[in-house]
Amino acid sequence: MEPVLLQYHYFSRFEKMRNIQVIIAYCGTAYNGWQIQPNGLGIQEVLQKGISSITGEKTHLTASGRTDAGVHALGQSAHFFTDSSIPIDRFPVAINSKLPPDIRVLKAFEQPLDFHSRYSARQKTYIYKIRQNKIADPFLYDQVYQLPYIVDWDLVNQLSKVFIGKYDFKAFMASGSAVKTTIREIKAIELSQYDNITEISFTGNGFLYNMVRILVGTLLEGAYRRTTNADMKSILNSKERSQAGPTAPAHGLYLKSVDY
Amino acid sequence: MEPVLLQYHYFSRFEKMRNIQVIIAYCGTAYNGWQIQPNGLGIQEVLQKGISSITGEKTHLTASGRTDAGVHALGQSAHFFTDSSIPIDRFPVAINSKLPPDIRVLKAFEQPLDFHSRYSARQKTYIYKIRQNKIADPFLYDQVYQLPYIVDWDLVNQLSKVFIGKYDFKAFMASGSAVKTTIREIKAIELSQYDNITEISFTGNGFLYNMVRILVGTLLEGAYRRTTNADMKSILNSKERSQAGPTAPAHGLYLKSVDY
Repeated sequence: MEPVLLQYHYFSRFEKMRNIQVIIAYCGTAYNGWQIQPNGLGIQEVLQKGISSITGEKTHLTASGRTDAGVHALGQSAHFFTDSSIPIDRFPVAINSKLPPDIRVLKAFEQPLDFHSRYSARQKTYIYKIRQNKIADPFLYDQVYQLPYIVDWDLVNQLSKVFIGKYDFKAFMASGSAVKTTIREIKAIELSQYDNITEISFTGNGFLYNMVRILVGTLLEGAYRRTTNADMKSILNSKERSQAGPTAPAHGLYLKSVDY
Repeated sequence: MEPVLLQYHYFSRFEKMRNIQVIIAYCGTAYNGWQIQPNGLGIQEVLQKGISSITGEKTHLTASGRTDAGVHALGQSAHFFTDSSIPIDRFPVAINSKLPPDIRVLKAFEQPLDFHSRYSARQKTYIYKIRQNKIADPFLYDQVYQLPYIVDWDLVNQLSKVFIGKYDFKAFMASGSAVKTTIREIKAIELSQYDNITEISFTGNGFLYNMVRILVGTLLEGAYRRTTNADMKSILNSKERSQAGPTAPAHGLYLKSVDY
């Protein structure tokens, strides 16, 4: 409990200091990703300005993790500290009134001061949306990865089983990323279908940079070439990015939820 | 049949002249409406460039009618003349390869030389999409009119019956529009619901400028204020724009189909 006491001590001079967790949905199309960018607008920046304008304070918003340009969120989680006495239930409506319509705060929760949207996270779920159609739907061009050829979803489902478990996912990390360890645990990969859209969901304790998009690209390529689970296993074991498939486009990816 | 013979005569020197009808879907968000604009990009311009780049000819594309900035189409109809010998089935794929992903040619038909996408049209159907939710969906912000209050759809349906028939719809035309007559015939108004979205469809032989959006605004205001069919009838009979409700936003409106 050391860190808790330390944090409490640090903030103890602010009597009313509150830690507010917000659950956020956004369409990533118009933004240069989550993080504040020198070129282009970051979602974090837009939210911080919105929060500041209702609390009257300078705000720093910490998310569970960054999302890349074009990537969406159905349930990004972030937290900020405030001295404001705004009732917790009022935060979503108040902040939303200051935001563009492609970013919405869905819920707000009062959390202990030691809650951290990134370090306290236990697992995350991403979904990847794919639609197969001859002529792409112009209303989904930035929200679903649309493919002109037929995908064997049963084969995708079968191949995906290879990646469930605790493995070194180095082959599925964008080359050049700096991390301490490339070992991650994927707890579940599930396919579901509605309105001609197939969603592949990935739940894990953490994901390497571009990991979900490279897994999706590898599974689609694998199904297209009619490869086997053994081939998938070889890619995993190679630990080489060059052995895996292409990185699927950003616009099919959604951060669905973060569990604590 | 005079005009037909005249047109045939005019084009007779081009042995291979063909009249190609295209059915087009587009998300209107990024464009300044259908028509070529001095400021901002028109959908017509983008399509003409796409068609020209595959036929190698200068192209003029005539639509069934203009759509305003932000208005969408599921089945806009337009035609162009060409000497190209591209097989009719190849046009959609070929043109789409030259278009941005928010504009798609769905089908192409070979038509007689006297077919005119505007003057040959018998009726048009527009739909208007509305969703009621406390927190607006950030993925639909430009494609559905989202309202925070509950709408009495049964009352909207009941009030809408007043407008079915042949009437002077002057009260439902944007003021300042120049037209020969403000009499139009609405053949059907129908409500349907899916995924929490309510669609109101309007089928008629023609619509005045902003007519569908003003009808929607008037129906929603009428239902909100719990007015009666007699009140709606009074607005219609007044022939004054000031008596009708607000113009509903462009982004809820879709040109669904044009019948010949």
